[in-house]
Amino acid sequence: MSDSDGGRRKGAPAMRRLGGEHLRELNNSLSFDRQLYREDLACSRAHAAGLAKIRVLSAREHKAIRQGLDQIESEIEQGRFPWSDALEDIHINIETRLTELIGDTGKKLHTGRSRNDQVATDLRLWVRGAIDRIDSLISQVQAVLLDLAENEAASPMPGFTHLQSAQPVTLGHHLMAWVEMLERDRQRLADCRIRVNVSPLGAGALAGSPYPIDRRYVARQMGFSDITRNSMDAVSDRDFAVECVFDLTLMMVHLSRMAEEIVLWCSHPFGFAVLDDAVCTGSSIMPQKKNPDIPELIRAKSGRSIGSLNALLVMLKGQPLAYNKDNQEDKEPVFDMVRTAELSLRGFAEVAAGLRFDREAMRRSASEGHSTATDLADALVREGMPFRDAYAQVRKLVAQADKLGKGLPELSEEEIRSVVPEAGADLRRALTLEASIASRRFSGGTAPMRVRAAVRIARRRLGFPKRRS
Amino acid sequence: MSDSDGGRRKGAPAMRRLGGEHLRELNNSLSFDRQLYREDLACSRAHAAGLAKIRVLSAREHKAIRQGLDQIESEIEQGRFPWSDALEDIHINIETRLTELIGDTGKKLHTGRSRNDQVATDLRLWVRGAIDRIDSLISQVQAVLLDLAENEAASPMPGFTHLQSAQPVTLGHHLMAWVEMLERDRQRLADCRIRVNVSPLGAGALAGSPYPIDRRYVARQMGFSDITRNSMDAVSDRDFAVECVFDLTLMMVHLSRMAEEIVLWCSHPFGFAVLDDAVCTGSSIMPQKKNPDIPELIRAKSGRSIGSLNALLVMLKGQPLAYNKDNQEDKEPVFDMVRTAELSLRGFAEVAAGLRFDREAMRRSASEGHSTATDLADALVREGMPFRDAYAQVRKLVAQADKLGKGLPELSEEEIRSVVPEAGADLRRALTLEASIASRRFSGGTAPMRVRAAVRIARRRLGFPKRRS
Amino acid sequence: MSDSDGGRRKGAPAMRRLGGEHLRELNNSLSFDRQLYREDLACSRAHAAGLAKIRVLSAREHKAIRQGLDQIESEIEQGRFPWSDALEDIHINIETRLTELIGDTGKKLHTGRSRNDQVATDLRLWVRGAIDRIDSLISQVQAVLLDLAENEAASPMPGFTHLQSAQPVTLGHHLMAWVEMLERDRQRLADCRIRVNVSPLGAGALAGSPYPIDRRYVARQMGFSDITRNSMDAVSDRDFAVECVFDLTLMMVHLSRMAEEIVLWCSHPFGFAVLDDAVCTGSSIMPQKKNPDIPELIRAKSGRSIGSLNALLVMLKGQPLAYNKDNQEDKEPVFDMVRTAELSLRGFAEVAAGLRFDREAMRRSASEGHSTATDLADALVREGMPFRDAYAQVRKLVAQADKLGKGLPELSEEEIRSVVPEAGADLRRALTLEASIASRRFSGGTAPMRVRAAVRIARRRLGFPKRRS
Amino acid sequence: MSDSDGGRRKGAPAMRRLGGEHLRELNNSLSFDRQLYREDLACSRAHAAGLAKIRVLSAREHKAIRQGLDQIESEIEQGRFPWSDALEDIHINIETRLTELIGDTGKKLHTGRSRNDQVATDLRLWVRGAIDRIDSLISQVQAVLLDLAENEAASPMPGFTHLQSAQPVTLGHHLMAWVEMLERDRQRLADCRIRVNVSPLGAGALAGSPYPIDRRYVARQMGFSDITRNSMDAVSDRDFAVECVFDLTLMMVHLSRMAEEIVLWCSHPFGFAVLDDAVCTGSSIMPQKKNPDIPELIRAKSGRSIGSLNALLVMLKGQPLAYNKDNQEDKEPVFDMVRTAELSLRGFAEVAAGLRFDREAMRRSASEGHSTATDLADALVREGMPFRDAYAQVRKLVAQADKLGKGLPELSEEEIRSVVPEAGADLRRALTLEASIASRRFSGGTAPMRVRAAVRIARRRLGFPKRRS
Repeated sequence: MSDSDGGRRKGAPAMRRLGGEHLRELNNSLSFDRQLYREDLACSRAHAAGLAKIRVLSAREHKAIRQGLDQIESEIEQGRFPWSDALEDIHINIETRLTELIGDTGKKLHTGRSRNDQVATDLRLWVRGAIDRIDSLISQVQAVLLDLAENEAASPMPGFTHLQSAQPVTLGHHLMAWVEMLERDRQRLADCRIRVNVSPLGAGALAGSPYPIDRRYVARQMGFSDITRNSMDAVSDRDFAVECVFDLTLMMVHLSRMAEEIVLWCSHPFGFAVLDDAVCTGSSIMPQKKNPDIPELIRAKSGRSIGSLNALLVMLKGQPLAYNKDNQEDKEPVFDMVRTAELSLRGFAEVAAGLRFDREAMRRSASEGHSTATDLADALVREGMPFRDAYAQVRKLVAQADKLGKGLPELSEEEIRSVVPEAGADLRRALTLEASIASRRFSGGTAPMRVRAAVRIARRRLGFPKRRS
Repeated sequence: MSDSDGGRRKGAPAMRRLGGEHLRELNNSLSFDRQLYREDLACSRAHAAGLAKIRVLSAREHKAIRQGLDQIESEIEQGRFPWSDALEDIHINIETRLTELIGDTGKKLHTGRSRNDQVATDLRLWVRGAIDRIDSLISQVQAVLLDLAENEAASPMPGFTHLQSAQPVTLGHHLMAWVEMLERDRQRLADCRIRVNVSPLGAGALAGSPYPIDRRYVARQMGFSDITRNSMDAVSDRDFAVECVFDLTLMMVHLSRMAEEIVLWCSHPFGFAVLDDAVCTGSSIMPQKKNPDIPELIRAKSGRSIGSLNALLVMLKGQPLAYNKDNQEDKEPVFDMVRTAELSLRGFAEVAAGLRFDREAMRRSASEGHSTATDLADALVREGMPFRDAYAQVRKLVAQADKLGKGLPELSEEEIRSVVPEAGADLRRALTLEASIASRRFSGGTAPMRVRAAVRIARRRLGFPKRRS
Repeated sequence: MSDSDGGRRKGAPAMRRLGGEHLRELNNSLSFDRQLYREDLACSRAHAAGLAKIRVLSAREHKAIRQGLDQIESEIEQGRFPWSDALEDIHINIETRLTELIGDTGKKLHTGRSRNDQVATDLRLWVRGAIDRIDSLISQVQAVLLDLAENEAASPMPGFTHLQSAQPVTLGHHLMAWVEMLERDRQRLADCRIRVNVSPLGAGALAGSPYPIDRRYVARQMGFSDITRNSMDAVSDRDFAVECVFDLTLMMVHLSRMAEEIVLWCSHPFGFAVLDDAVCTGSSIMPQKKNPDIPELIRAKSGRSIGSLNALLVMLKGQPLAYNKDNQEDKEPVFDMVRTAELSLRGFAEVAAGLRFDREAMRRSASEGHSTATDLADALVREGMPFRDAYAQVRKLVAQADKLGKGLPELSEEEIRSVVPEAGADLRRALTLEASIASRRFSGGTAPMRVRAAVRIARRRLGFPKRRS
Repeated sequence: MSDSDGGRRKGAPAMRRLGGEHLRELNNSLSFDRQLYREDLACSRAHAAGLAKIRVLSAREHKAIRQGLDQIESEIEQGRFPWSDALEDIHINIETRLTELIGDTGKKLHTGRSRNDQVATDLRLWVRGAIDRIDSLISQVQAVLLDLAENEAASPMPGFTHLQSAQPVTLGHHLMAWVEMLERDRQRLADCRIRVNVSPLGAGALAGSPYPIDRRYVARQMGFSDITRNSMDAVSDRDFAVECVFDLTLMMVHLSRMAEEIVLWCSHPFGFAVLDDAVCTGSSIMPQKKNPDIPELIRAKSGRSIGSLNALLVMLKGQPLAYNKDNQEDKEPVFDMVRTAELSLRGFAEVAAGLRFDREAMRRSASEGHSTATDLADALVREGMPFRDAYAQVRKLVAQADKLGKGLPELSEEEIRSVVPEAGADLRRALTLEASIASRRFSGGTAPMRVRAAVRIARRRLGFPKRRS
């Protein structure tokens, strides 16, 4: 191959290279790992500082390397960098370019490190950055939901279990359940970040480095808070990536649930909400259509996320120590997962912010299905009946109401007493939506005052003391 | 956005469009579905023929559309097509361009079809083509393996179970096991192709078409052998894609097993084979390294494949009829799966073709671990001992050999008789590798003559009557 | 352990056994593989016949073995079999018992076979039986759906895309889409069955057998239609199990879609159907609840199915030839998958048979959302307008109707003409549900006559010429 | 149904029940959820205390309930509890029995709670207990490995990358990599435990409770450290279970890697180690076999684990709030995952404890493959050559050694200088295994002193200051 022989780039290391076009396409990682360029440069700067501290690099050499890396960064960002597929990956591309730019000093940079610890370092830096961006996006979605929840803290809607009308709740309470799901996602990512933020640099190919580089000093240059403890583990470990992808997959499953509800709410039979035109598309053939494309896509993307998680777990299964080329397959699932999460969170924020609710329709629906039957049973308990007996009585009353074609609140006192002789005078009050909702005023409940308190607490937690809008 | 308002392309249908950059990035499918362009043009040509047959298009209009589509094809292939992200997808891009090119007649093409049946048609055509390409690649890998197997039909190697030496086999027999796995993959794909090759065109958005288009005629234009029977099923069904991805995933799992074996064989402790330099790369730090990158990558790509399969299954889970936008997430897993399969098969063919075996090392290894112990038991059976008793006797003999630090074939007749008094004079003959292998000469066995016969049969099945090289 | 030493059962083969309780629990497969007893007996009978044919067994020995196996079968079926965990698995339990029952002749049965080919044979027999049972259950579900579809061949309901009202369809047509999905499942299983129904017996441990057993004769005893071609492949191949589990997983995904629709239809906001009391349960606290538990469970079980599929694929990934103990993990996912499929199909049949539809509610819903807008566009096309222009006109008309708070069919002729001057006198007729549905009368369409024809064809295909009820 | 009508158990609540045997089998959870009995009793005791504190139960009633629950516990543990499949699940079985035992007071226990918050509470308690057990088992495995690592802190073995000899390492260092993997597993589980240990009790069916129960008081009775903040989230959230299953899945993937290495080390070609007889089994046909069944099974069980993880994620995908019956499918994957993890950890501990290493074989293998080539390059760097030039020189020297059929350490000074004229006198010293290993004496490296330090630190972290044995 002319690439690796005659046509070899001057500064390129004399490494064994693959022959054959198909093989190179299979082996090549440059198409995706070039997005690690910032992290690779940060890693090289830190490593150079470490080499300079132990005088493997002189001050002059260190400066030349720093300047070379700066120039490479600006070349890449200005689109002027001479990328070469023949140089396999981002690391060799940058190292080769450095030697072209600054001469033999560039050949010293790889002293005491290997691509194995280098790529692990780069990916950890990249994942750390991704976690930070996503944490911020989740907060933004939560902020939108908190504003909506405050607005709708007292709006009754049917609370479903089994998609059957169960008990009335407030829309604000429902939306705060979403905020809670997302809060756990943020917590998990924060825990994961601690495990990500550990420097493997200095592990070398697998056995550690024979150079007395101060690994903690180098780690601090990159903002790492700790260093790995075992060199073989350091180059083969991809737990940090898998854990992050799992956390994001579970978040996407959460979004799939919220998206499903939005699709339901916007369907004609529900009619609880309409989407803003900006998040809908039409049909190529049906002129009246307004389709909830964005929520549907977000729902579907839980599939792709579960796919990425599996890709990583299966890739790792059964791998002996230490580094194997299999690990090159770690990057695409991580990159796709993070991009999916970012797009979906942005999309969801716009969907949520644009929801317009039909309070009247929700209220009407909440009144159906004898949704306050449990309240009636609880009222009987307050009058001294054991719960299971009260439950049985109300069940009979529901059957009676169905026979009369009435809802529970429409039954007269006589009709109630004919089935439940123990029923007190004020029992019918328990059957209104407002009474039902207001009664659930204890910790975690759906009463409006409780929802407003939950919004306040969540805003404080997020550091968003005020409404966004 | 200027794109969808003032800047709207002249021929573009007046459909509702998404606003907002992030939303459009989330919704946009053009980045991946543009590789359906050939299929989309084929679908439009067939549909136009169907409309012409029932006179919805005049002969002149039909001709204009045909010419417009031809021009679009050459524009795309020459890189001159004016792709527009604002036009969402491949279908609207092409329809819009057609109207730009041929005027109002272009607006008639979408009569009696919908994007829903159109995209299902396109994807079926694409998957059909992919199956054909992959079938051919599998055959090529099989052809390489058949040549190797013929060469090594009589080369002894250790047959492992539990990665412990079990019974001697021939390398040719081992390689023919790989040929069998791949043969089942081809069969499954052939079955799948029958279900893929059915035209959904004419299903409309979901309810069928009010135009009396001859669906079978249209299907034949595209080489389909049947038409779908229910319009709602036709637009929501993605079984054909999932089945194809499953078939390819199982094939990739097969390749992961073969790749694992190649990695083992090329490791120093085994030393059974070396890879051609063309399929190896080196280390950035260890000058002596020659790494089996390609087999490792192929092994790892089983993870990505399982990921794609999951992505599709999860995407479909719980979807109500008929078409939902979730289905837009079908394409990327299918495209990535097919590309992965193609690259891996090509890579595997080169890896296999370049394998150089160390027959002496394999033979030496096959002699270890008392690999002919079962043959000894079988010899005792032939002398009248029940198998279970023979098994117990030989087990004792193995223990005795271990104590003496000898292999079974190295035991003297006396040493054998001291443990197994029933042992006949010619028993030691059963203990050679050649005798063991030759004895397994019945259907499916490892004897050289049986392996050569299997190669001949397989070549005939594949239509490869001769060696390739 | 007393079990494997002093306390060893008399007929048990003198094999190496695991020590330690936890290890035995990990290793033991008897708790699940005992459900293979029928298949294991069938395999032993066939193998004995093969040994008798080549005179490894005398006629008398053969008879003794047959009788011993018969007795074991009745002992197991009557719950009198002395199962022993210390004997690892079903195969050793039966072999040991046989020797207890008939003496030394029992020790000859394992001549020329290994547990490796034996267990592969057993599992293939079991999977074949499972496919046959499931094929029959799918047919039964289809029969129920065909009866329902015939009843509802002319009942209008909203056809949804994106869960938005798209075009009116008939309920019968919708149900026939389900029949189609299930029909593909049956086809896939039938294809799979051909690959299952191949005998590996005679492959021995991995290298083939040194006995001239007539493998085709033995295979015929078990109803196999072919024999495996390579002994190493034969003992390591689990494709047949993975393929079956995939086919059933895709079927469960289909059921998840149907179950989702049933849950939607039975929710209060839809109100399209009610479930029979027999398939609902109540709440422990809400006396009015009637929950669609069975459809929900069926929907959820798609998760467990996808899990089983992954378990198998991951287990196989990277396994070198030939048999490895990993393969013991094949059985539980297969058994659980088949049980899940059987329970779910039975459950779904009862759910479907007990559905009571509210035709009036469905009809009312079908009238909403301008569901006949496409029909109006098509009517304009028939009057000569290009489809894209018709589409744009009708889109304006829909906006106008929304402004007036009317449905499209409620617009007067003047109101229509004010937006669409080209509208002919009989245009409003196109806007009725009946006209829309009737117009889709071509192959695959929703018109009642087309649905009835589809029912007839499907009944013929299934061999169910008449209604079941 | 006689079960739910005439034959109904006296104390059973008058809830709607399923009819039909198949449906009941599908719906029934008693077969698996009965293992929640301890947690369900703990939940009921805590709830009763909460009801007593607000005087919904009198002191006498509270005492009766406590005594009834105690009696139920002893009935269950003594196998005398009258389980009834007709009573659906563990919760109704216990509630019904309580009323049988103590009369009408039993009917008051369900006041203010629902099965929805009850089952969420039970499962959280169960998962918490499982995490604690598994944490302890992981520590035990680590303790075994630490003892081994200390013993083998100075034993050279080949360090592999790509399964090719890369650089010499010590076995102790290799084993400490395993300790690190497991340590991260413990950390993740500890993080997960914090999210598990939150009480949902008081969330009611979905809307919260109308009784002023002190939820924090009730939570403390069960050892929970916090309470959930939103009632709808509380009953639908299964994150805690999914996260735990993910953590255990990743741990099983780690074990699959270690098990793979053990299988490799015990294969004849490697010959690095032999397993204790207690963890091996034999073959049914090959008398000499000693198979590493336990490591193989552990490796394979990563598949089942990934399956369970998928089962849960897919089950949750797209579920609307709040509780749906789908969630009943949460328990089996969690139970199976925990059992798999426990069995595998116990098995792995015995496997590891019984490993006997062949130090000589490992040392011999470590000397092959020019494993100290990097050390030579580093030595040249110390003499002033840029690393990339040193790398290129050594690469030539390796080629030369191969031509001469020698290992690098076997080259004479002259042979070295003929290729690398710059080579100093003491260069050959760098080529010994001991020098190579000793040079990697910095943080995380493989030098014996470093390994011993790592063992000490890990013991302290685990609270195991001494060797176990």
